[in-house]
Amino acid sequence: MLNKNQETFTLTWKFSMPSIRLFVEDDLSFGSVITLSRPQTHYLVNVMRRRTGDTLLLFNGRDGEWKTELKKIRRDACDVKVVDFNRKLVIVPDIWLVFAPIKRGRIDFVAAKSTELGVRVIQPILTDYTAVSRVNEERLRMNAIEAAEQCGALTVPTIRSTIKLSKLLADWPAERKLIICDETGTAPPIYKALENTSSTKEWAILVGPEGGFSESEFDQLRQCVSFIPVSLGPRILRADTAAIAALTCWQSVLGDWHSDPKIKQL
Amino acid sequence: MLNKNQETFTLTWKFSMPSIRLFVEDDLSFGSVITLSRPQTHYLVNVMRRRTGDTLLLFNGRDGEWKTELKKIRRDACDVKVVDFNRKLVIVPDIWLVFAPIKRGRIDFVAAKSTELGVRVIQPILTDYTAVSRVNEERLRMNAIEAAEQCGALTVPTIRSTIKLSKLLADWPAERKLIICDETGTAPPIYKALENTSSTKEWAILVGPEGGFSESEFDQLRQCVSFIPVSLGPRILRADTAAIAALTCWQSVLGDWHSDPKIKQL
Repeated sequence: MLNKNQETFTLTWKFSMPSIRLFVEDDLSFGSVITLSRPQTHYLVNVMRRRTGDTLLLFNGRDGEWKTELKKIRRDACDVKVVDFNRKLVIVPDIWLVFAPIKRGRIDFVAAKSTELGVRVIQPILTDYTAVSRVNEERLRMNAIEAAEQCGALTVPTIRSTIKLSKLLADWPAERKLIICDETGTAPPIYKALENTSSTKEWAILVGPEGGFSESEFDQLRQCVSFIPVSLGPRILRADTAAIAALTCWQSVLGDWHSDPKIKQL
Repeated sequence: MLNKNQETFTLTWKFSMPSIRLFVEDDLSFGSVITLSRPQTHYLVNVMRRRTGDTLLLFNGRDGEWKTELKKIRRDACDVKVVDFNRKLVIVPDIWLVFAPIKRGRIDFVAAKSTELGVRVIQPILTDYTAVSRVNEERLRMNAIEAAEQCGALTVPTIRSTIKLSKLLADWPAERKLIICDETGTAPPIYKALENTSSTKEWAILVGPEGGFSESEFDQLRQCVSFIPVSLGPRILRADTAAIAALTCWQSVLGDWHSDPKIKQL
């Protein structure tokens, strides 16, 4: 016998949106004309074969989502005109992802996947034992924008400039809870730890570097932050897997996966 | 003030194991001599610079983990001798991941990440609307083995041969619950859906293809499977993200992340 959920369930799975969606920096309001960038024009005209008169959706992280019409195609740019309001702005919950740089493919992956799962701020950190010393924040941002365009989000996470963990902790806002992914097996399971938290609104997830934290970073963490160590099970997850897994658990227990305003019906 | 968890928490993060761990097919018992393959020998000798007399850990998915000593290095192979028992076999919970093929990088990623998170069987399926028609199961297995070696797992997931979804469902064991990731927004949140399930031991997660299911597949699903549709939040996740996210939630609520036998202390 089928239960109610099964009866109403339509079993479709789509990971592409019915319309093309692009992120722009410009303000969006009825009647305004936006000039799309060279890469956006290439994608729209050469890859997706759109022509004058075709419609696409734009969002800028502030004004919701707007329907626009392709008005003029030039060699390296094109103009679109805002013709209709499509969706009200929905902001992802106030969760930050703080992590030490990992190698290129994996850090791109973290930026894209965390955007899909839902994250407000991505904060790369350098620690005493971090091997890599440079993070390409612009590339992280490009990965986040592409993921936001595809997953139907109406905002793009803020990619903060890379800073030392010690500096980040020195200025850490006392009211923001910091979840720390622990691989020693001494922390409580993430699910239980998150269920038992009080009604904090501001959150962050910290995934440490491969080499662990130094003694002074550890002291600083203990002194200045209201942190929650959590375990992600008995296997040793790579840093990128841990970041994605912790964010998934947070979203499902405390975030907008729990009782969500549906933004899927485009 | 620090709470108990914070006091005992050591804040280290390691995603590499202290020893080299390799997966072999051979039986493992005290005193037996194992010949490692050409790629394993290359990795051990040329990449990791191990020499005769050095130790490494072996596991085969059946006999737990054993300490071995490198006895003889030849050109394309090397012999190791089992010298000590290290850890008892721990088997991951009985959860299968069933999914339609996606493009190469992403399917490799699903195999590796799901192994880290913990999965017993990976079952690729072809559906009426699946574009790709061939899955390289051997490459998936290689990705799973590498992930198992790194994450400290003592088993490697079974990679089943790719079959039609209709065939899989025709033989579906009635007692195995099937979680279906739904992107329509009509299914209950995954966390709530999993919390409210009865004490089933056998589980599977199904992530459908990009094109959705056909009418006949849908009918078959409804008729023969005790399935649980779940929502993964308001954004539209890519199929690979959905697979990883659903497995993360399952492990944290019902799997071995909840009250885990610790296998980390190697």
